[in-house]
Amino acid sequence: MPIPLLCDLLIINAVALAEPGLHPPIDHGFVAIHGETIQAVGRMTDLPPQTLTRRTIDARGGLVMPGLVNGHCHAAMTLFRGLADDLPLMEWLQRHIFPAEARLVSREMVYWCSKLAAAEMILSGTTTVADSYFFEEEAARAFREAGLRAVVAQGVIDFPAPGVPDPGKNIEAAASFMDSCQDRRLITPAIFCHSPYTCSPKTLERAKKLAASQGCKLFIHLAETKGEVEQIRGQYGRSPAQHLDHLGLLDRDTVAVHCVHLDRDDISLLKERGTGVITCPESNMKLASGIAPIPAMLEAGIPLGIGTDGCASNNDLDLFCEMDSLAKLHKVASLDPTTLPASQALRLASSGGAQVLGLGGSVGRLAPGCKADCLIIDLNQPHLTPFHNPDILVYAAKGSDVRTTIIDGTVVMDERRILSFDLTLAMAKVRELAKEV
Amino acid sequence: MPIPLLCDLLIINAVALAEPGLHPPIDHGFVAIHGETIQAVGRMTDLPPQTLTRRTIDARGGLVMPGLVNGHCHAAMTLFRGLADDLPLMEWLQRHIFPAEARLVSREMVYWCSKLAAAEMILSGTTTVADSYFFEEEAARAFREAGLRAVVAQGVIDFPAPGVPDPGKNIEAAASFMDSCQDRRLITPAIFCHSPYTCSPKTLERAKKLAASQGCKLFIHLAETKGEVEQIRGQYGRSPAQHLDHLGLLDRDTVAVHCVHLDRDDISLLKERGTGVITCPESNMKLASGIAPIPAMLEAGIPLGIGTDGCASNNDLDLFCEMDSLAKLHKVASLDPTTLPASQALRLASSGGAQVLGLGGSVGRLAPGCKADCLIIDLNQPHLTPFHNPDILVYAAKGSDVRTTIIDGTVVMDERRILSFDLTLAMAKVRELAKEV
Repeated sequence: MPIPLLCDLLIINAVALAEPGLHPPIDHGFVAIHGETIQAVGRMTDLPPQTLTRRTIDARGGLVMPGLVNGHCHAAMTLFRGLADDLPLMEWLQRHIFPAEARLVSREMVYWCSKLAAAEMILSGTTTVADSYFFEEEAARAFREAGLRAVVAQGVIDFPAPGVPDPGKNIEAAASFMDSCQDRRLITPAIFCHSPYTCSPKTLERAKKLAASQGCKLFIHLAETKGEVEQIRGQYGRSPAQHLDHLGLLDRDTVAVHCVHLDRDDISLLKERGTGVITCPESNMKLASGIAPIPAMLEAGIPLGIGTDGCASNNDLDLFCEMDSLAKLHKVASLDPTTLPASQALRLASSGGAQVLGLGGSVGRLAPGCKADCLIIDLNQPHLTPFHNPDILVYAAKGSDVRTTIIDGTVVMDERRILSFDLTLAMAKVRELAKEV
Repeated sequence: MPIPLLCDLLIINAVALAEPGLHPPIDHGFVAIHGETIQAVGRMTDLPPQTLTRRTIDARGGLVMPGLVNGHCHAAMTLFRGLADDLPLMEWLQRHIFPAEARLVSREMVYWCSKLAAAEMILSGTTTVADSYFFEEEAARAFREAGLRAVVAQGVIDFPAPGVPDPGKNIEAAASFMDSCQDRRLITPAIFCHSPYTCSPKTLERAKKLAASQGCKLFIHLAETKGEVEQIRGQYGRSPAQHLDHLGLLDRDTVAVHCVHLDRDDISLLKERGTGVITCPESNMKLASGIAPIPAMLEAGIPLGIGTDGCASNNDLDLFCEMDSLAKLHKVASLDPTTLPASQALRLASSGGAQVLGLGGSVGRLAPGCKADCLIIDLNQPHLTPFHNPDILVYAAKGSDVRTTIIDGTVVMDERRILSFDLTLAMAKVRELAKEV
């Protein structure tokens, strides 16, 4: 006899894709959520008739899947979306982005622009984001209010930065951010060193020491451009990855972002150290940084996730489109259509990313005991018809196909409406800030 | 004193992007439509107070722009969307697509699956499509009923094909399709030769003769894969483009699709002959065919448009995403972020494509006397906030941001609902057909 179910939220009549890219979906399934946790996933025929639930959502043949994991973002940069497109990287950064940041980044800006980003992510199916910027206590506040799960990393750079006018105090600022981050139900604090070319060896070592003492992740942009590799080799006689390793930075708690220009030795080194990688294909394409050796990293068994990067360089935060770009880019780059199949992209955008962020096991899959972070996709649309298999999520679905987003057991978006906060106000605030740009 | 306006449909309070990629938008503008034609485009302040209109649509700060032109599609292939992803091209074609086509393509299938494709296109902002398949009188019927403008090309191939069991009669079938196409308000008939490797020189010559006698376009897949180029060079001692030219096929009325593997001589030849090209970046990426030399073709001044290809190889028909992929792909391929700027992608997807299809001047722009084919984009969304400039249409907007689609003066979609036909029925019919796949 089946055990009776008692739950807070029951999703019924769904195509249940519990572990994207790893197992096929259940055609006619249910997901039961109790509190913040997945209680059960199964076939409708196995749903105990004595099930008691506070609320039922009928997916009406839609697909339920774990929320996606955006492994790298600079949420506050929504303000600079489309500000200066199609420019050479250094001109873009030095003549447009850095000056705009120096003039406009404030506590208020980070709060409102991160809130706008949170809405965009929730509406497009992201339930966990790793964010890296300045004034990150404001980003944490925005994400918490939005109900978005986040790893929030305070930026460290050896220049005067927003909120950190004296670069000599950048590590202290990161430490004080971590201390300030007390409510950790949704938020996990971390540290973000901008890059090997903007952080001195001493800064990198101090940052790693702080991260280690706090048991938290250290994020860093690594080998994003050819120029960076040449500069670091020129300065230190080592590749950027070797440079970090030499300083003791490469281990399981470091997350290397971009990794466009890694050679075979770098890949072996990352694998050996257990360092995870976040790839941002659309940003790397748009800024013409290059094509990361993702197939080689996958073959080596490096933990891998996908990120959107900030939306000054993408220009959106839609992980469905990012999966599509990732899969297609590596096919054409390798001239092999079997490279990076849809199932792989789905895995990287869910459990793969969660593992890199240190949330593996509890996030990125729907299984009893996991965090109740999930999406309902509306399959009843022309561009998702017919539904032959979940590949369609990569090659045809968009973030706009997400009908409902649930994070930590709470419905934060339903029928395309944000329920956790006043989106109209956030958009109005960002538009006002944009007038100053 | 301004001349009073008398119109059928007046769009007000819009950011009016009349010629995408060519001129900046009017911040606070209007578009007046009379019958099937654009009557006026201007600033709200210049709207004559005596304007009389049957209907007013308040764009509420949304953006109005010409509908997009999908330069290459196999609409009926919606049935095979996601049927066999991530496979080598020849295995995909020969083991999956060709057998499925042989078994399943019928009049009924082409009608319903083209109708589904029409809905998908209308919902994602395409107002003109160039379609190439078999049973094209059924595709024409579907597009006509959907209210979608289309250049409809009957397929010619030297194998038994759907509706043309005897390949010896393939030209006669195309001729009879053209005769059947009497109502040409929305539909322009054309001919589609599958490729230089599936059509003999004699077939190609006969097809061109028919096209010339009817004053219509001839579409052909050209230099899609490296294998094709090798095969044609081996058989005829010429590149595929030279081969077509040798047979008298290259002129202003031939549309060459894909053109992934063109060399400098081929590009010069196409330019000299005035032949237009349609590029399908997402299909070429997904099937790992390669990266077309688009920047070189643009530099040479070859007329260029964008196509989605069929959605067995894409897997959707969203031209907004196609613009994004095109712009990003060529940046990373050239390692130059200034390559293929957003404005260029916008031009190719509108007036560029229209020119290639022979509709230049009247389609792809909003100007008095042009066809009233236009879109209203809902800018009041997080991922389109803030709005700095129209680049956002390429790098952040998706087809799902189109709120209203107007074709030939008729509102065929409003508030995301298809008004011209019963979409629910079409989806149900395609799902039924999909059970046979």
